[in-house]
Amino acid sequence: MQRVTVLSGGMGGARFLQGLLHGIRSRSIVGLAPQAEVTVVANTADDIWVHGLKVCPDLDTVMYTLGDGIDPDRGWGRRDETWSVRTELEAYEVEPTWFGLGDRDVATHLVRTQMLDAGYPLSQVTQALCRRWDTGVRLLPMTDDRVETHVAVPDDASPSGRRVVHFQEYWVRLRAAVPAEAVVVVGLDDSSPAPGVVEAITEADLVLLPPSNPVVSVGTILGVPGIRDAVVATKAPVVGVSPIIGGTHVRGMAEQMLTAIGVDVSAAGVGLHYGSRSTGGVLDGWLVDEADADQLGALDAAGLAARAVPLYMTDPEATAAMAAAAIDLVR
Amino acid sequence: MQRVTVLSGGMGGARFLQGLLHGIRSRSIVGLAPQAEVTVVANTADDIWVHGLKVCPDLDTVMYTLGDGIDPDRGWGRRDETWSVRTELEAYEVEPTWFGLGDRDVATHLVRTQMLDAGYPLSQVTQALCRRWDTGVRLLPMTDDRVETHVAVPDDASPSGRRVVHFQEYWVRLRAAVPAEAVVVVGLDDSSPAPGVVEAITEADLVLLPPSNPVVSVGTILGVPGIRDAVVATKAPVVGVSPIIGGTHVRGMAEQMLTAIGVDVSAAGVGLHYGSRSTGGVLDGWLVDEADADQLGALDAAGLAARAVPLYMTDPEATAAMAAAAIDLVR
Repeated sequence: MQRVTVLSGGMGGARFLQGLLHGIRSRSIVGLAPQAEVTVVANTADDIWVHGLKVCPDLDTVMYTLGDGIDPDRGWGRRDETWSVRTELEAYEVEPTWFGLGDRDVATHLVRTQMLDAGYPLSQVTQALCRRWDTGVRLLPMTDDRVETHVAVPDDASPSGRRVVHFQEYWVRLRAAVPAEAVVVVGLDDSSPAPGVVEAITEADLVLLPPSNPVVSVGTILGVPGIRDAVVATKAPVVGVSPIIGGTHVRGMAEQMLTAIGVDVSAAGVGLHYGSRSTGGVLDGWLVDEADADQLGALDAAGLAARAVPLYMTDPEATAAMAAAAIDLVR
Repeated sequence: MQRVTVLSGGMGGARFLQGLLHGIRSRSIVGLAPQAEVTVVANTADDIWVHGLKVCPDLDTVMYTLGDGIDPDRGWGRRDETWSVRTELEAYEVEPTWFGLGDRDVATHLVRTQMLDAGYPLSQVTQALCRRWDTGVRLLPMTDDRVETHVAVPDDASPSGRRVVHFQEYWVRLRAAVPAEAVVVVGLDDSSPAPGVVEAITEADLVLLPPSNPVVSVGTILGVPGIRDAVVATKAPVVGVSPIIGGTHVRGMAEQMLTAIGVDVSAAGVGLHYGSRSTGGVLDGWLVDEADADQLGALDAAGLAARAVPLYMTDPEATAAMAAAAIDLVR
């Protein structure tokens, strides 16, 4: 297998990609060519305009992580970050105060915003930004169109009993600590895949769904008209890795999002939500953690090649082993 | 005298204002009320759009200096500044690399740019920014319109033998080290005074021209249609302080700019360039340094009340004494 395409969100996807690349470079993944090319189709529905800057959290997390610029402790933003801009914006009492931009990170957003203002589509902007970072992958936004995930949360002060907040406000300000009553992805239905996205899927030798959020990361990517069809149609095997271990997410908030859309919060629940391509879904194989081995029967019954292996991405070696196991499912 | 209006550029003007306010607060300026209100009309022709941000060097130098946020050693930008954004923009190889923005400073420009993009005029943006800074003055941009000073410099590679650069490029990148063959203030003729500017001059009890650049600072302010007329018409006395001492400027590049417009680089030369209001100019009084006492005769002959006193703004006390001497000329 030469051409691998990964549909990725932020932290989980980036860490999975780090392991995948490690496995390719160390030739520890049976079935993948040593010179395998990896294309990443990244979620952009978390994007937000803040302080006049276009911020693309998932694109940047992938870019910084693979380019060795990520803060490894936080898992997002830049290493050796400084926070003067944030301090000053707070002194000016400018909203939103809950979304703090690091100074190094601001530079990325300045370059991006200026290029967008000059008329370049996000895909070209991303390519330009990646020139600086030796990511080892081709990084594509899922779409060049503006798509934004919003979340309905309870609000007693509102006549409807609800209010709708941007995904980042739900995640960063509310810390995903209140129930998500609904997820609305504004602009999704009218969006188009960015140049190269559909081809990257249909012409791939392998399509991987990393343990990213199945609703607001992989779910929105698949929701861009044309992308799900490409995944269903590709001749490449499609394998996913469960973001749920033992009934909850390892990081992020898959649990809240799955609950919002009425999907069982379990490794099998997510696998069945994606569904087998043999029955109209998007997967051929589904990897679950050893803790969830009891769910293999249900997955098998649904037509999915499934296996239980350790799914904690503790280091690139462990993650490469996960990727190898995923690929072994469909070799 | 209760209402004082000052037409100011950046560093020289800001330092003069610092001394003036010190003098008012310490009641060391005879003729000025202890509660005298100072309005500053600041040059905006140095403004530049850089990395998508609207930067207003003179407004910010006045705001930071009077708000005690200035870097006292550089005389511009923020104290305790960090430079992560600049480092990152350089890593992205984004032009211009010669115009470095400090991180704290960037926050000011983000707030300004976002407000301008939202439709607020610069005067309202400036007022909003000043809410944070206890400047002790009312700070007005000379105009809400886009006005930009450009400088023609020699260029052998150009068919005309010249090329025209933004003022900031001349100052920051070329360090004013090449001859300025011409100064063109783009947009000046079509600009209008910002709200309150004309009234601040016509209703003042005193108008002061600090030792700012007579060409690209005070000169551009006076060039906004309506402002020069207001200075000529006001009942208030108008007194200026020479930026030239002993045949050269103390800081900045008045020498280069005066040469560009064919004005003698001397204290008297600048005073005569401004001219006496009795003969169509804008001044009633003109303060020169002790080193230029020999030029008092020429100034007197031109109808200007002139005096020679120490003009080095070494500290707020010395500067307050200068302001006191300027006012004493016309009391």
